[in-house]
Amino acid sequence: MSKSDGIPGPAVRRLSLYLRQLESLLGQGKRTVSSRELGEALSLTDAQVRKDLAYFGQFGHPGIGYRVDELTVRIRRILGTDREWNVALIGAGNLGRALLCYRGFAKKGFNVIAVFDTDKKIVGTKIDLQEGLTVLPMSKLSEVVRTQNIRLGILAVPATAARQVADELVEAGVQGILNFAPVTLKNMTCPVAAVDLTVHLEQLSFQLAGGDNT
Amino acid sequence: MSKSDGIPGPAVRRLSLYLRQLESLLGQGKRTVSSRELGEALSLTDAQVRKDLAYFGQFGHPGIGYRVDELTVRIRRILGTDREWNVALIGAGNLGRALLCYRGFAKKGFNVIAVFDTDKKIVGTKIDLQEGLTVLPMSKLSEVVRTQNIRLGILAVPATAARQVADELVEAGVQGILNFAPVTLKNMTCPVAAVDLTVHLEQLSFQLAGGDNT
Repeated sequence: MSKSDGIPGPAVRRLSLYLRQLESLLGQGKRTVSSRELGEALSLTDAQVRKDLAYFGQFGHPGIGYRVDELTVRIRRILGTDREWNVALIGAGNLGRALLCYRGFAKKGFNVIAVFDTDKKIVGTKIDLQEGLTVLPMSKLSEVVRTQNIRLGILAVPATAARQVADELVEAGVQGILNFAPVTLKNMTCPVAAVDLTVHLEQLSFQLAGGDNT
Repeated sequence: MSKSDGIPGPAVRRLSLYLRQLESLLGQGKRTVSSRELGEALSLTDAQVRKDLAYFGQFGHPGIGYRVDELTVRIRRILGTDREWNVALIGAGNLGRALLCYRGFAKKGFNVIAVFDTDKKIVGTKIDLQEGLTVLPMSKLSEVVRTQNIRLGILAVPATAARQVADELVEAGVQGILNFAPVTLKNMTCPVAAVDLTVHLEQLSFQLAGGDNT
């Protein structure tokens, strides 16, 4: 049984926000922070901050508050971003290539070491100049996931292909999926995080348009 | 007063999911859909679907359900993705260039027509081969926003610069911000949609790591 069982999703999401804030404080040279200060920057009460952190352990020091460096290290360990994960990217189209340029993955320990596509025109070409990754055919997926110890798959395929490719990733042995395809993956047997950029765009355009319904 | 006032955020977000589902049904050639069918695909009850849509108008037809093409057009209009918005991208680093490759923006009517950066090594260079956009200095922001009728800014700058650039965008006259910087923009006077990819990555790695806190 995973240690994450029973911890509310919002508390885990706020852990990311606390980490962001702590990294900013570290950069400013601050050594300690109170739950009130940590909460204020995120529009949360000090009670909420203490309650969230209590799910994960005992971090505060009486009369001091939290030590910024200590809490940073502990939260990174809890979030699993203190280690490296080998990652396969599926889909070498526009979005996939855009994601390959994005250094944020490597910063969080997610190393894209293999790229796959179904398009015969793309398979065999090199798409990342820095890494020199060659696009592989989907038929190699199981073998590469096994031999290269790949634990995570990033889905950057069209909505219509997403479900099948996700099932192939699980079958090949990946333990988590980061889904950029604009479709909901239901009933998967591994954790899925979804990033649907079109939803964010639509939400913003709704606010710009003022919910026009004429 | 905007017509979007008083409509719960989750209902607006689900509107995006309904649209995704309707577009998929359109692709399959389906002409009508019931609230039950629409809800099932998204793990929602039919009552929830009807309640959500009722915030925006009367869409159903007795004995028929929803007409797929009609509801698609109406939701696109409500979300404002049936029109074009001129967009400025701020930040021509890795993430900014990655976003420029991403065709999803144009598909939703968001046309990136100007790119800005503070880095003197980047200003003046062309970064998008298809469009031939030249990176402009921040000093040109106000003028370009006004003369090119830019309504939206995409923030792809480091966390430390995000707040100042956001304020400059509002000052220059943009009406909404899509924030990719890993920082919360508080007390802005215009709508802000945040896409923090690192939060998604951390949430997934938390699940992979099983909340390890040893």
